[in-house]
Amino acid sequence: MTNDPNETSQPTAGVPLTASLVARAASLAEAPLPDDVRELARQCVLDWAGVALAGANEPLSRILLAQAREDGGAPIASLVGTPLRLSVRQAALLNGAAGHAIDYDDANMAAQGHVTAAVLPAALAVGESRAASGDVLLRAFAAGYEMTGMVGQYLGRAHYERGFHGTATVGSFGAACAAAVLMALDRDSTAVALGIAGTQAGGMKAQFGTMCKPLHAGKANENGVTGAQLAARGFTGRADLLEAAQGFALATSPAPDAQAALAMPPGGTHLHNNLFKYHAACYGTHSSIEAVRTLCEAHQLTAADIERIDLDVEPGAQRMCDIVQPATGLQAKFSLRLNAALAVAGADTASPATYIDSTAQRPDLIALRERVAVHFMPDGWPLMQAAVRILTRDGRTLSARHDSGVPERDLARQRARLARKFMALAAPVVGPDRAAAIERAIGALDHIEDIGTLMSMLSQPTGTTS
Amino acid sequence: MTNDPNETSQPTAGVPLTASLVARAASLAEAPLPDDVRELARQCVLDWAGVALAGANEPLSRILLAQAREDGGAPIASLVGTPLRLSVRQAALLNGAAGHAIDYDDANMAAQGHVTAAVLPAALAVGESRAASGDVLLRAFAAGYEMTGMVGQYLGRAHYERGFHGTATVGSFGAACAAAVLMALDRDSTAVALGIAGTQAGGMKAQFGTMCKPLHAGKANENGVTGAQLAARGFTGRADLLEAAQGFALATSPAPDAQAALAMPPGGTHLHNNLFKYHAACYGTHSSIEAVRTLCEAHQLTAADIERIDLDVEPGAQRMCDIVQPATGLQAKFSLRLNAALAVAGADTASPATYIDSTAQRPDLIALRERVAVHFMPDGWPLMQAAVRILTRDGRTLSARHDSGVPERDLARQRARLARKFMALAAPVVGPDRAAAIERAIGALDHIEDIGTLMSMLSQPTGTTS
Repeated sequence: MTNDPNETSQPTAGVPLTASLVARAASLAEAPLPDDVRELARQCVLDWAGVALAGANEPLSRILLAQAREDGGAPIASLVGTPLRLSVRQAALLNGAAGHAIDYDDANMAAQGHVTAAVLPAALAVGESRAASGDVLLRAFAAGYEMTGMVGQYLGRAHYERGFHGTATVGSFGAACAAAVLMALDRDSTAVALGIAGTQAGGMKAQFGTMCKPLHAGKANENGVTGAQLAARGFTGRADLLEAAQGFALATSPAPDAQAALAMPPGGTHLHNNLFKYHAACYGTHSSIEAVRTLCEAHQLTAADIERIDLDVEPGAQRMCDIVQPATGLQAKFSLRLNAALAVAGADTASPATYIDSTAQRPDLIALRERVAVHFMPDGWPLMQAAVRILTRDGRTLSARHDSGVPERDLARQRARLARKFMALAAPVVGPDRAAAIERAIGALDHIEDIGTLMSMLSQPTGTTS
Repeated sequence: MTNDPNETSQPTAGVPLTASLVARAASLAEAPLPDDVRELARQCVLDWAGVALAGANEPLSRILLAQAREDGGAPIASLVGTPLRLSVRQAALLNGAAGHAIDYDDANMAAQGHVTAAVLPAALAVGESRAASGDVLLRAFAAGYEMTGMVGQYLGRAHYERGFHGTATVGSFGAACAAAVLMALDRDSTAVALGIAGTQAGGMKAQFGTMCKPLHAGKANENGVTGAQLAARGFTGRADLLEAAQGFALATSPAPDAQAALAMPPGGTHLHNNLFKYHAACYGTHSSIEAVRTLCEAHQLTAADIERIDLDVEPGAQRMCDIVQPATGLQAKFSLRLNAALAVAGADTASPATYIDSTAQRPDLIALRERVAVHFMPDGWPLMQAAVRILTRDGRTLSARHDSGVPERDLARQRARLARKFMALAAPVVGPDRAAAIERAIGALDHIEDIGTLMSMLSQPTGTTS
């Protein structure tokens, strides 16, 4: 591992790309994790636990749970926020969807999606079934995370632009990799596991704003688990599905880039570039929220002071979070205009409870929203950057910029912020005492002998609070 | 319904395409099936039962079964060829894979794949869970089949050429449609079911020659069942995923064609154009086998008489069935050259037992195979047509053509041929008496009150014969 952000591994002649990706992921899993990577992995687990506990109460999670109860299954792996255990595959699907249900989970731009929700539940379900230690779990997660970054870079932004939801597609490869580490598959079998997972992977961006978006995260985990389980049993599949002719990349991307896949990310691993969410809306709205809030606070502006707001954002935001007239809480999460209005109004954008139907329908917010104009900048504009201009009624033009695409470098500060977010999400579900105990357990996750201990703490009779 | 092959429904302005497709499929399901369509549907069920009983004994089916046993599940729907019942979703996956395991099941060119294996197990599993009648089962299957033809035509051949395996992708929409009919979903919910199924759909042609190809058929059924089950429970998803911006067609096809989707197929339904397989190899090899066999029989040629064989086939065959030096039985099914050699040698290409590793490695067949040259014709060559020239050692050039893409019009003759194929496949698995009883039951399927009766007949302790 290196910290030189400019270093690039060349694809090795004669070595299938997938084999090179598996080797890099395996090298992370096989050695003790560097301290910062281990801390980042624990932070991802903590953040996931909070959003999944909150998400398990969402209607979409309850529907999946009702179906899973009808389907039945052996009591092997815990469903977060419920007293149930079901098969590894079912736990991967349901916990995966729960972690993305409120769309408040972390993201990675290289991976083109929400990585932890797509990868960690697969690792936890397989790990629980094998009584894996916390240390092995963190290594497997780090390897799976790294795989998503490499696959995302290989497929390129054009994969996402074509309509594929990276959380679902790229995530399937990461989940397979993490599951394979926990099942102790060798590198050849891991490559086959990736192929079996990848040939199951779908997920379209048209589903944004519906329950299928969180379902995609669940499917990534399910596809990954299925790939690793079947490969472990000798099921055959291509070990180079990703790069093969008639394979995944050529079918879903106009320009797969093997060199980009192997390029070393800033900090040395893709985990170094994980982005946590502190607003409960689509990540593409965060910079606009931050910049609008900064201006309103600095100049003590209220809605009455504002004539007009202009947001300059990356062109892809048009297909991601530009619902112009949101009618529901879910749609509100994908509306740049409404989120700018929420920032002016001083709404608690950190709280998922803000994003409910009645918020989208509030007349004052609609009036404010109508004064927001969104401008999609040319290609090349930084993906998560927003430039905001506010024209005041007294004729001033105030401007600010924010870039939510820059990860926090102070890990202690990040951890403290995540702990607050976790408590706010988890305490209402499991009570403050158990929430605090979970936070402590995850903080020492690498010392837990059997992650079943943690999964038991995340289990809870549906709809009750302790 | 009309029999004019030139009639085309125009997409209706303002009506989403998916709604039009659902309406046409529903119109098939809601009225009694025309006699020929009902007979064709029964023939598909019979053919599937034979290939699935044989396929349930294949290694890939045994792996899926071992995993399903570990996963557990409520005993709701039968796994063909086993004594087990598991969840609807599990039965859809396993029975779907079993039906395509020996790659001997029917296909449809408009649908770009193997339709019955992708659609019928979903219908059977949902139908069994609801004690549906044989009549309703046949209607649901006909509706799901029609959906695959329409979706396949919408995506166009370029979808398949890009690397997508239509059995998996197109099949997911058909399976969702069939499951929705059996769950009595209204048209709006059916459109959502299609969207939930479609956003889960993947499947790459690079997997041809591996166990993932049959897995794709299983996944189509599983995706379809999941789509219908979740839509029935109020899970939200786009009702127009197929045609939406950022949706399925635009992401996976360069030129979706709504008019083609609604064009009336020859005969009036896509079922009229179903193609049954009578050789246990990839459909793309059948015309070559037939034409070579015709020439060898007419001129009493043996291997010793033949200097060289030239096969003219459609260009897409290069990516489908041109494994030049097959090493395994599975690869042998996808080798035009080896299948031409098998035809010369008088091998029983109707028997799956021919396609084993030792066949691929037989020196006489390898020597013969090396004298076969495959020529990929320009675009526009009929997809399933082969033109064969045999140069004899005594200097004659003999030629013949065959087109396996033309469906049999004599349904009674087709039924008799299918009955022989069924008995050859099923009798070794369940014994001749039970095989005959299954054939009779399927022949009168529209009079069965509860298809559980049929599913019980298809159940069998693994690996035993009665």
